[in-house]
Amino acid sequence: MTKIPVGVLGATGMVGQNYIALLNDHPWFEVRYAAASPRSAGKKYRDAVAGRWQLAKAYAPHVGEITVEDANDVGRAAAAFKRGDCSFVFSALEMGRDAVKALEEAYAAAGIPVISNASAHRWTPDVPVLIAEVNPHHADIIPMQRKARGWDRGFIAVKPNCSIQGYMAPLYALAKAGYQAERLIVSTLQAVSGAGYPGVASMDIIDNVVPYIGGEEEKSEKEPLKIFGAVENGLIQNAALPKISAHCNRVPVTDGHTACISLEFGARKPGSIEEIKKIWTGFKALPQELDLPTAPVQAIIYREENDRPQPRKDRDADKAMAVVIGRLRPCNVFDIRFTALSHNTVRGAAGGGILNAELLRHKGYLQ
Amino acid sequence: MTKIPVGVLGATGMVGQNYIALLNDHPWFEVRYAAASPRSAGKKYRDAVAGRWQLAKAYAPHVGEITVEDANDVGRAAAAFKRGDCSFVFSALEMGRDAVKALEEAYAAAGIPVISNASAHRWTPDVPVLIAEVNPHHADIIPMQRKARGWDRGFIAVKPNCSIQGYMAPLYALAKAGYQAERLIVSTLQAVSGAGYPGVASMDIIDNVVPYIGGEEEKSEKEPLKIFGAVENGLIQNAALPKISAHCNRVPVTDGHTACISLEFGARKPGSIEEIKKIWTGFKALPQELDLPTAPVQAIIYREENDRPQPRKDRDADKAMAVVIGRLRPCNVFDIRFTALSHNTVRGAAGGGILNAELLRHKGYLQ
Amino acid sequence: MTKIPVGVLGATGMVGQNYIALLNDHPWFEVRYAAASPRSAGKKYRDAVAGRWQLAKAYAPHVGEITVEDANDVGRAAAAFKRGDCSFVFSALEMGRDAVKALEEAYAAAGIPVISNASAHRWTPDVPVLIAEVNPHHADIIPMQRKARGWDRGFIAVKPNCSIQGYMAPLYALAKAGYQAERLIVSTLQAVSGAGYPGVASMDIIDNVVPYIGGEEEKSEKEPLKIFGAVENGLIQNAALPKISAHCNRVPVTDGHTACISLEFGARKPGSIEEIKKIWTGFKALPQELDLPTAPVQAIIYREENDRPQPRKDRDADKAMAVVIGRLRPCNVFDIRFTALSHNTVRGAAGGGILNAELLRHKGYLQ
Amino acid sequence: MTKIPVGVLGATGMVGQNYIALLNDHPWFEVRYAAASPRSAGKKYRDAVAGRWQLAKAYAPHVGEITVEDANDVGRAAAAFKRGDCSFVFSALEMGRDAVKALEEAYAAAGIPVISNASAHRWTPDVPVLIAEVNPHHADIIPMQRKARGWDRGFIAVKPNCSIQGYMAPLYALAKAGYQAERLIVSTLQAVSGAGYPGVASMDIIDNVVPYIGGEEEKSEKEPLKIFGAVENGLIQNAALPKISAHCNRVPVTDGHTACISLEFGARKPGSIEEIKKIWTGFKALPQELDLPTAPVQAIIYREENDRPQPRKDRDADKAMAVVIGRLRPCNVFDIRFTALSHNTVRGAAGGGILNAELLRHKGYLQ
Repeated sequence: MTKIPVGVLGATGMVGQNYIALLNDHPWFEVRYAAASPRSAGKKYRDAVAGRWQLAKAYAPHVGEITVEDANDVGRAAAAFKRGDCSFVFSALEMGRDAVKALEEAYAAAGIPVISNASAHRWTPDVPVLIAEVNPHHADIIPMQRKARGWDRGFIAVKPNCSIQGYMAPLYALAKAGYQAERLIVSTLQAVSGAGYPGVASMDIIDNVVPYIGGEEEKSEKEPLKIFGAVENGLIQNAALPKISAHCNRVPVTDGHTACISLEFGARKPGSIEEIKKIWTGFKALPQELDLPTAPVQAIIYREENDRPQPRKDRDADKAMAVVIGRLRPCNVFDIRFTALSHNTVRGAAGGGILNAELLRHKGYLQ
Repeated sequence: MTKIPVGVLGATGMVGQNYIALLNDHPWFEVRYAAASPRSAGKKYRDAVAGRWQLAKAYAPHVGEITVEDANDVGRAAAAFKRGDCSFVFSALEMGRDAVKALEEAYAAAGIPVISNASAHRWTPDVPVLIAEVNPHHADIIPMQRKARGWDRGFIAVKPNCSIQGYMAPLYALAKAGYQAERLIVSTLQAVSGAGYPGVASMDIIDNVVPYIGGEEEKSEKEPLKIFGAVENGLIQNAALPKISAHCNRVPVTDGHTACISLEFGARKPGSIEEIKKIWTGFKALPQELDLPTAPVQAIIYREENDRPQPRKDRDADKAMAVVIGRLRPCNVFDIRFTALSHNTVRGAAGGGILNAELLRHKGYLQ
Repeated sequence: MTKIPVGVLGATGMVGQNYIALLNDHPWFEVRYAAASPRSAGKKYRDAVAGRWQLAKAYAPHVGEITVEDANDVGRAAAAFKRGDCSFVFSALEMGRDAVKALEEAYAAAGIPVISNASAHRWTPDVPVLIAEVNPHHADIIPMQRKARGWDRGFIAVKPNCSIQGYMAPLYALAKAGYQAERLIVSTLQAVSGAGYPGVASMDIIDNVVPYIGGEEEKSEKEPLKIFGAVENGLIQNAALPKISAHCNRVPVTDGHTACISLEFGARKPGSIEEIKKIWTGFKALPQELDLPTAPVQAIIYREENDRPQPRKDRDADKAMAVVIGRLRPCNVFDIRFTALSHNTVRGAAGGGILNAELLRHKGYLQ
Repeated sequence: MTKIPVGVLGATGMVGQNYIALLNDHPWFEVRYAAASPRSAGKKYRDAVAGRWQLAKAYAPHVGEITVEDANDVGRAAAAFKRGDCSFVFSALEMGRDAVKALEEAYAAAGIPVISNASAHRWTPDVPVLIAEVNPHHADIIPMQRKARGWDRGFIAVKPNCSIQGYMAPLYALAKAGYQAERLIVSTLQAVSGAGYPGVASMDIIDNVVPYIGGEEEKSEKEPLKIFGAVENGLIQNAALPKISAHCNRVPVTDGHTACISLEFGARKPGSIEEIKKIWTGFKALPQELDLPTAPVQAIIYREENDRPQPRKDRDADKAMAVVIGRLRPCNVFDIRFTALSHNTVRGAAGGGILNAELLRHKGYLQ
């Protein structure tokens, strides 16, 4: 099978590096185009990331030889598309919100689908915020998006913030089983890789916790409502529930966001802790049914040990794509509480984006 | 003024070391007696802690020369009392619960008041669990305790768990102002020193979080109810509120417990965020009024920066005895949320015990 | 091919866990026997390591079901040998030196070869201290060892200390090319996993360095002389050179020992830095020639970036079995200096032991 | 006594913050002038450092109210000098080397003495590189510097790099006792605060070591030669010895540089390890004799425990101004080896600068 040639925008940043590394041996996609800031443009990828490559895993040799383009220059990508080097792009752009918004639209207008990690378009009503296990049907908005925008081939689909990745699938599995979460109080202990590179200064985090991450709490509270929303008249109508209150903290951990969740159900409540565990461990969604290459075998892993999940030990579960849950127990105030973990730069970023692309290819939106 | 000679039980452990260091230049108390496990008994204190002393601050030279006694041997302490070397003891015993319980009673029965950090007696109904700023009146139970037990001079008073120290004074200040917290969901990010020495293994916490601390959540949920309780008929009757749900996590921080709190008031709610800040910063309790030597000038410090409190920067505020609060804001689910910090081995352990002793001396129970 | 059944002594400790995990899918060996302290004896392996399993990688399901034996009970291993469950053992025993010495001899006497990580027998003159790339010919002493001891099938072969693993192959490659190192001053920055579990207390290492590791400097200075020694008359005669001075430090790193080396050659010195790099990157030893399953493709990886090797980024190079070198430059005092890194619990412990076993099987000593 | 008004250039950076904090209650000096980059100019100091203040210790309230000036605008400082607000400046400028060089000269030409932490002028032959305990007599070059430059009141005096601070006084004490170090191989384990703020990215240092610090090894090898040099004909003539080879590493420590040193003496060697300890602990230099306010009581503290010095436990010794030594023992290759520690942002930066200023005031160069 010939692989689909893909591009990565923001290829030299933390998330971009994860895209590059995760696509090393991808069975469907092959990186043939890389774009970044003007500072990197014109350099070979290996020179552009020299001294900045953050991952233990190396990039593929052929990617090291790619000449990095200026991500602002959509024409270069369009030319790459024409010569068969860039069928769609993963966007890990790290510019300001408005710049990202405009640029991603320009790529889409130029006929290049954009699978994005940036937050810029998460609140654009006709742009789906996809978690492949939770709302794959939101992809149905793409034809409407194309039509409304006058785009023929291009479109924009985004991912949610990494902070919520650990509990969205568990909430969805419960809702699907008839148990709607109505209120949620969550505290996160987030890894420094979530802030990109150089990101968090070491003086701020060694022997320390920072109880604040700009914009993160708002995103954590709002994005689930769109993801749980319904496609109506070419727009996504947000769900009304659950109400969420998030406390987001930065901790001295390289990778893996931990979340402590207290949750109140609506009128219909699970009969027991065991019933919930069964719902979670039995949860199979479209990526699992389709056996997509990047999909975890089990979307939700439940660990019975009383001190798990832990970032260092659980973040890499099933290619770092699984959500790992533990400590499910009755809550003294709400109904239940538990701890959830997911790998923020894989499941919560590049890996999640690749899984979305696999889903969209299956649905015929990418080729 | 002649200083009151005091003893420290469990003097070689983490909390014991903090007692020793904090009492270095105390204006009222002087360490003249030290007891620990049989393994240390008979050694000079400096030999007993060689290679185990955890603090940057050194112990006083004269303490280094004290011969450590076996903490199980109450007779040694009684003899020291007789010769004027031990008027009362701070207990930082680290044995099993039942052993501590029995041993502390034996000291009290021998005429030696016990100011304890151990959790063993926290649920003994006639033993007060004191936070000097919150429930100093619980000391009134001491005469009843003595009478019921047949003790003339000895008694037992304890401290609560370090995990709740950051928010008890803030809750109390609000309640005093008429705003009773009814429900509380709290997630803590606790320092490793809370587990003593050697305590948490480095392999368990470098680049990691452990979402579990044995017994800590139960203590965090129950102890506040006793502290907010009322003395009735020689016993402390627990308060019914607030209902608390605690998620306790261990993080790679040496000292300083951080807590993220979402709180729901009863029918009477503060009018604004600003009103609450005013209540907190204006809060003055008995230790401040009496100007006790170890009392912080301000029991609650509020920081306006959006990324504070932080353990490394705020734990040492006002001799590490102040509670530092920040990020007060409306909660999306309950009424308000905020972040609280206190130094777990000082305010939350030895420093809090010393402040309790100062209070009890003021009230005439120690001399 | 039927796999050779192997046992692991000290199977529940840090190094033992690494053996178990690394042997998960080994093409030649299969864990069928596990022994540990009497405390674990009688438990299933999964119960014995519950709450103590340190690795992100899980143990194979069938190992979880193995009933752990008391490592002191050699008879159990002999019985397992007879029923075909234990052809030889990897020893990761963590007892005192004399106990390990006697116990390993008892296993060998019972006909069970012992591939050991323990330091107990490193100075026994007829026991080879093997690094598969450096002194595979020391295996030739095994028949003499057997004869002298009256053992028919059993024997003991050990590994050196993990602290020297990063520079032994580089020194050997240089010596083989005619450039004998005569003097070496080395400072190590060693990972906490080297101390086992619980090992280093977190209070000792967060925001800290400990400039001392008991016995480590002596081992680092003496063991290379035996490894570079010659087999003569059934004994290993130590080499006289190089003279080594080691400063061993513990740093807050989970895995991966870093070493900073200044080195003085004898009269014959390499012509240039480039010549040395060529010697190192071109170095191929027996494990590479035989393509042993656990051998790194390249025994020595040289990185040109000026800030490498780094533990987090380089420890896992080539299954964590390669030595990674960087920063080779002229020394202001000796001839050259460089930085070396190897994964202490894989290359420096269990992985190195398994590679030794592969070598010894190839040589016909294990079947 | 009226305090001397002083200014701090680069007042908002990491070293500048340390100057501000350390001068809080200084008996001789008072901060009345603060300058930084144009970005901060015009803001109150408290606004300029909001969200960037790195220290647990707060700045003095009156400093918070100072309006920060543009450090490039020497005229502002000259005006402040005229109105009695800035008698001399501490320079913690963080610009490029040439810019710092020119700017410090401009301040000196404007009549404002510059006590600098920057490296720009360390190799200017008529600028002394002062360690108050080691080469206070190098201050004698100031009149010649003034004369050669045509400056009446201004001059420039600098500090050496923080990486060498831990062993310069020990080397000097030995040399003074007749034991000249001729060769030195040193490996450092340096704290992240040495790189300023934001400095080292957390992704680069959590669970990691970086074996490279740009320019640090060269500085460590050359600066001691100037400090041990002689003032001849208005210039400092470098010493020829010791020859130094430095390996500089960054480790996950907030403050405190550790150095492992192997040292070879010239023909004259100390008789014993004990003799060296006696030389060190008995070492008293000019700052101690004069009892300068910031001088440590003992310039060199020797610790007998085999696992000290440690950054977290020893960096704050004697106001963080003492050098702490341990592990003195024979070297297997050179004569002796030991471990040295000093607080890099206090003794090695701002504290060292303040001590230099105290010395220079004593000598009459500052008033």
